[in-house]
Amino acid sequence: MALITLLTDFGTADPYVAELRGVLYSRAPGVTLVDLSHGVSPGDVAGAAYLFGRAWHRFPAGTVHMVVVDPGVGTGRAAIGFGSGGHWFVGPDNGVFSSALDQLDGPVIAIPAAVDAAPTFHGRDLFAPAAAAIALGRRLQELGEPLPTLPVRLAPAAPFYEGKVVVGEVISVDRFGNLITNLTPAEVPDYAVLEAEDADIGSLRRTFGDVGSGELVAYLGSGGQIEVAVRDGSAARRLGVGVGGRVRARLG
Amino acid sequence: MALITLLTDFGTADPYVAELRGVLYSRAPGVTLVDLSHGVSPGDVAGAAYLFGRAWHRFPAGTVHMVVVDPGVGTGRAAIGFGSGGHWFVGPDNGVFSSALDQLDGPVIAIPAAVDAAPTFHGRDLFAPAAAAIALGRRLQELGEPLPTLPVRLAPAAPFYEGKVVVGEVISVDRFGNLITNLTPAEVPDYAVLEAEDADIGSLRRTFGDVGSGELVAYLGSGGQIEVAVRDGSAARRLGVGVGGRVRARLG
Amino acid sequence: MALITLLTDFGTADPYVAELRGVLYSRAPGVTLVDLSHGVSPGDVAGAAYLFGRAWHRFPAGTVHMVVVDPGVGTGRAAIGFGSGGHWFVGPDNGVFSSALDQLDGPVIAIPAAVDAAPTFHGRDLFAPAAAAIALGRRLQELGEPLPTLPVRLAPAAPFYEGKVVVGEVISVDRFGNLITNLTPAEVPDYAVLEAEDADIGSLRRTFGDVGSGELVAYLGSGGQIEVAVRDGSAARRLGVGVGGRVRARLG
Repeated sequence: MALITLLTDFGTADPYVAELRGVLYSRAPGVTLVDLSHGVSPGDVAGAAYLFGRAWHRFPAGTVHMVVVDPGVGTGRAAIGFGSGGHWFVGPDNGVFSSALDQLDGPVIAIPAAVDAAPTFHGRDLFAPAAAAIALGRRLQELGEPLPTLPVRLAPAAPFYEGKVVVGEVISVDRFGNLITNLTPAEVPDYAVLEAEDADIGSLRRTFGDVGSGELVAYLGSGGQIEVAVRDGSAARRLGVGVGGRVRARLG
Repeated sequence: MALITLLTDFGTADPYVAELRGVLYSRAPGVTLVDLSHGVSPGDVAGAAYLFGRAWHRFPAGTVHMVVVDPGVGTGRAAIGFGSGGHWFVGPDNGVFSSALDQLDGPVIAIPAAVDAAPTFHGRDLFAPAAAAIALGRRLQELGEPLPTLPVRLAPAAPFYEGKVVVGEVISVDRFGNLITNLTPAEVPDYAVLEAEDADIGSLRRTFGDVGSGELVAYLGSGGQIEVAVRDGSAARRLGVGVGGRVRARLG
Repeated sequence: MALITLLTDFGTADPYVAELRGVLYSRAPGVTLVDLSHGVSPGDVAGAAYLFGRAWHRFPAGTVHMVVVDPGVGTGRAAIGFGSGGHWFVGPDNGVFSSALDQLDGPVIAIPAAVDAAPTFHGRDLFAPAAAAIALGRRLQELGEPLPTLPVRLAPAAPFYEGKVVVGEVISVDRFGNLITNLTPAEVPDYAVLEAEDADIGSLRRTFGDVGSGELVAYLGSGGQIEVAVRDGSAARRLGVGVGGRVRARLG
C-alpha cells in the first residue's frame, strides 16, 4: 500500500490535520501517512515550495504527495493532480509543486470539487479523496480533465551580479537560525569572500565545526545551497537577517 | 489491526507522548497510531471536545480514540471506555467525549487504575493499556464495571436572542485567526447581517475568496458553524476577539 | 518489520525531518516510524538525554532508536551504533544515549560517514541509512569498527547534602510548568519538607489532586523523580524557577 505525504500550513493545534487523516484512513485503509510538515507559515506558498522541493524526491517511487498550502481555496485556482518522476502529486495549482514539474509522466489533471465540498476546506473534501483514490490505484485521468493551461510555476529570485560581486538572497531561515540562500557553488568559487549585512564571513568552509563557537561561517548546505550560520548560535539573530535578506560573494 | 487515535494536551517537547506511543506499540504490536493533536491548551477540556467532535467520525468504524486531556487525573473523576457509532473511546469522564455519547453501543465502563499506575499519568498507565486491549479485540466489559452515573457532558453555550438579534459566541480561534462560532445556518438566514465587536461583516458569503484581500467575511465553515475571517489576514487580531467573544446576527 | 523511533532538535517547520522520513521509508520499505520528539531545544543534549531515558524502554524489544541532537556534527565526534537491552541505538557519541549504555549487548560500533555525506546533516546521510540497515536485519558489525574509546556518558548533577537539607536540581520543566527534579524517594523520606525559591511546599503528596486549585504541591512523578507543581497552574511561572533551579528537602 502506498505512502501518502502531507504538507500543510494548518499547524497541529486545530482539527484540520486530524480531519484529513480521518478521511485518508477511511478511504484508503492500510495506507501509511507521513507528515512532511504542518508548520508552514499561513499561506506561505514559497516557503512550502522550498520545503517540498527538498523532501519529495527522498521518498520511494509511487508515493502520493498531498499539499494543502492553499490561500486561494474557493477561488478560481485549479486543483491539480499529476505524476512526475514516478511520484504522484495532489494539491492547488499555485506553484507549490514547481520542483516536481520537470519530469511529468503524463498530463496535469484539473480535479473538480464535488458539489458538497466545503469551499474553505478542499484539503479534506477534494485533495484527500483524490490522494486516497490515487493511492488505491485509480487512474488519474478518471479524476478530471487535463488542465487547459500550463501549471503555475514559482520563479525564485536568481542571484545577480553587481560588478565583481554576486548578490544572493536568503530563501529560508531554519530553527537554528541558519540562513539558507539561493547561492550555489556555481556562483561562489572557493576564492570568493562572503558577507551579509556588512559582516565579513570569509570564504566557504566545510562545516560549522571548522570555526570557533560563536563565529560566523558559510558552507555548502545539505540542500545544495550556500548557507550562513553561527556555530552554536543563530546567524539570523546575530545579523538581523531574514527571508529576502542579501548575502554577497565578492569574487575579486 | 485497528487504528488508535491520540488527543492530548501534552505538547510534543516533553517525554509524555513518546511514553504513550511506546506503551501502545508494546502492547498492541502492529497497531497504527494517529495523532489528532497534542496541541490542546493545558487542561482545556472544552477546546479538546470541540476538536474531537470534528474529527473522530471521519475515521473508519472500529477505530479506538484515546483522549488524555485530563486536568482531574488522580482525583475522583472516572476513567471511562465505551463504544458509540461503531467506534471505541477511552479517556477521562470530563465531557471531552460529549460529541460521541449519543449513539452508545453499550454501557459506559468505568476502568479502574492498576495499583502501580502513576497517579499523575493515567494516560500512560491506564488509558493506553485499555486502548491497546480494545484494539486487540478484548471485550470492554472485561476492563471494568458499568459507570454508576451518567457520563459527564459539556453544555456548550447556545446562541440566544436579544430582540431581532441572535447573539453567538466564538468557540475556537484557529491558526489563521478565523473565528469559529456556535452559530449555524439554523439561526442565521441569508438576509441576516453579521457583526463582531462593532465591526460590520455583512451577510454570509460562500468563502473568503468572495471578498477582497484584507476584508472581513462571514461564511458557513467546514465544521458546520458560521465563521468570521479576514481574507489573507487574521480576524482575531483585526477584531481583538478570542474564544468567548460575541458575534451577532441582525435579523431585521 | 521493525519500529524506528526518531528524536531530534529539528522542530517540524523545516525540511529536515521530512528528509529523514523519506530516506528511511526508501531504504526500509514497510518500516513504522515513531516520533519521540522533534521539540528538543537546539543542541540541548542533556534535555534530549532526559527525554530519551524516559521513553526508549517503553518500546518493544527490537526497536531501532535514532537520535539526531548533534551540535558536534561534522567535528571529530564519533557516530555510533550499538545494541542494549534488546534494543538498537544509532546517533552521535555525545552522551544522549547515557541511559542505554548499561545493558550493552555487544560492542559499540563507530559508523564512518560516506564520502558524499553532507557534513552538516549526518542525520540524513549517515544515521538514517544506518538505522534502516539495522531495521532490515543487517549486522551492526558490518557498519563499522568497534569504537576505540568508551562512549561518552553524561554525568547528571546528583543531589547533595547541606547539613540536614538535601539539595536537588530541576532537570526539566514540562509544558504544564511542572518542575521535574533529580530528587528521588531515596533522598526524600515522607517526613521531609520541600521548598523551592523560599516557597514552602510541604511534604510529599500523592498527586496534585491532593491540594486545592492554585496551590503548590510536591509528589513522586511518573518518571520516578520528585516533581513540584501548581494544581491547575504553572510552578515554573509561580516560582520563577527553570532547569538548574534548586529544590530543597529539609529532613529535620
